Amino acid sequence: MAGTKCIITGVPGVGKTTVITEALKRLEAAGNPYAYLSFGSFMFELAEKQGLVKNRDEMRLLSKDDQRRLQQQAAEEIARIDGDVIIDTHASVKTPKGYLAGLPEWVLDALEPDLFVLVETDEDQILGRRFGDLSRVRDLDTYGALQSHQSFNRAIAAAYAMKTGCTVAIVTNADHLVDLAIDQIVGLLT
Amino acid sequence: MAGTKCIITGVPGVGKTTVITEALKRLEAAGNPYAYLSFGSFMFELAEKQGLVKNRDEMRLLSKDDQRRLQQQAAEEIARIDGDVIIDTHASVKTPKGYLAGLPEWVLDALEPDLFVLVETDEDQILGRRFGDLSRVRDLDTYGALQSHQSFNRAIAAAYAMKTGCTVAIVTNADHLVDLAIDQIVGLLT
Amino acid sequence: MAGTKCIITGVPGVGKTTVITEALKRLEAAGNPYAYLSFGSFMFELAEKQGLVKNRDEMRLLSKDDQRRLQQQAAEEIARIDGDVIIDTHASVKTPKGYLAGLPEWVLDALEPDLFVLVETDEDQILGRRFGDLSRVRDLDTYGALQSHQSFNRAIAAAYAMKTGCTVAIVTNADHLVDLAIDQIVGLLT
Repeated sequence: MAGTKCIITGVPGVGKTTVITEALKRLEAAGNPYAYLSFGSFMFELAEKQGLVKNRDEMRLLSKDDQRRLQQQAAEEIARIDGDVIIDTHASVKTPKGYLAGLPEWVLDALEPDLFVLVETDEDQILGRRFGDLSRVRDLDTYGALQSHQSFNRAIAAAYAMKTGCTVAIVTNADHLVDLAIDQIVGLLT
Repeated sequence: MAGTKCIITGVPGVGKTTVITEALKRLEAAGNPYAYLSFGSFMFELAEKQGLVKNRDEMRLLSKDDQRRLQQQAAEEIARIDGDVIIDTHASVKTPKGYLAGLPEWVLDALEPDLFVLVETDEDQILGRRFGDLSRVRDLDTYGALQSHQSFNRAIAAAYAMKTGCTVAIVTNADHLVDLAIDQIVGLLT
Repeated sequence: MAGTKCIITGVPGVGKTTVITEALKRLEAAGNPYAYLSFGSFMFELAEKQGLVKNRDEMRLLSKDDQRRLQQQAAEEIARIDGDVIIDTHASVKTPKGYLAGLPEWVLDALEPDLFVLVETDEDQILGRRFGDLSRVRDLDTYGALQSHQSFNRAIAAAYAMKTGCTVAIVTNADHLVDLAIDQIVGLLT
């Protein structure tokens, strides 16, 4: 459909929500509004409508086939949205069994994103933010584990670029420089 | 088919054989046995049965088309195995013409792995192990060459994750900590 | 078709043109001549023939669909060339919207390359060469930006290897050692 499909990702604690929220406001103020959706929430609502789950915790209990089908259906519905959309998701998710692609092939084929953004910052800063934000339960990662995760995200983003032809932009959300990160996101979406 | 298909990889000298052998014993003792196969040996036996080669050295003389067909047939047969299987292979193979994908697309499509494990350790430790093990002819790599190879393996593992939806787990097999590596593999397969 | 399809890539300023030009001479002198083409120029000539553009600057104004179709047609025509060919292009292109895959899936599927070469060197040396070559307008990259770009190129090369089964060779074109780089390219193509 007409419109830019932009995927924004970042490891937990990097400040993705903050930069997306502000970028959406500025884009709207500039007369260039984007719709916003979280891929995970979108999938959950789909599963709920289909009577597969009653709450979000049950999502991980779904069979692999059900999860894959839901991912694909969610991607197909999002692709049909007319207009510009920011899709909030993860490049990869850290699970007890290793890194899991946030956008496996069947999602990419259905979604056909135009732009893929990695929000990153120094691992030390992410650790600082995770300790500082006691309102959310975050992974207890080490510096090295975070480095490995961010590096894996860059690698899988390259695979996404090969698969879809989307561009991959890296936006640094450094301490004290959140405005710069928001400006960059707005610039990418304008 | 029912069962977990787990691919375990690592550069020569990282101690992959040791950790797989011990992990298989512990999994069996815990009442959760895995079958084991080496992808290369499996392909060779297939080629032998088809009268294409008489010994393992002849494998590299096969045409590119024959090699690809054999890879695909091997992957299809392995996918039909009922039950849990560890598949021992390489994320990428270092050849005189550069890095070669251990699991190109046609293998992944046929195999549909659930879990992909990278066994890694510091390059210095790998060099030490290669010098120490005079029973096998190993590549004479430098520190930098090993670093480049391990890094390429992580990148290609990300592409595998995108393609198949398998998880990618990184297990460090550090000097004096082989038990930890085995525990982690057992944990991933349990 | 018969013949090796070899893709050679490198960030602007790495000295790709120099090493390709010399490698072509040596290969010809050794009785093993390669045809040469630039993927970008090949696409432009195709667009010109189809009356889509009048000059090269107009290429970036083409619709996404036209660009994709032209890429695919160019790749199909190159794949039909009989004999050995060096294809000069980029692993990824740095654009205002982020990194763009030089060889997205539809190009790889049509082209089926045998060998993919990354010409690299230290970021400091690339910066030095860019400053030294005032005849061309180059990107004003920082050390970190170049590092990020070269690293992204390695990651996307791994995805290309997964997709096509081509080998990925890394050739360092270091200051004062250009002959070594040329020798390595000649060796890969012989």
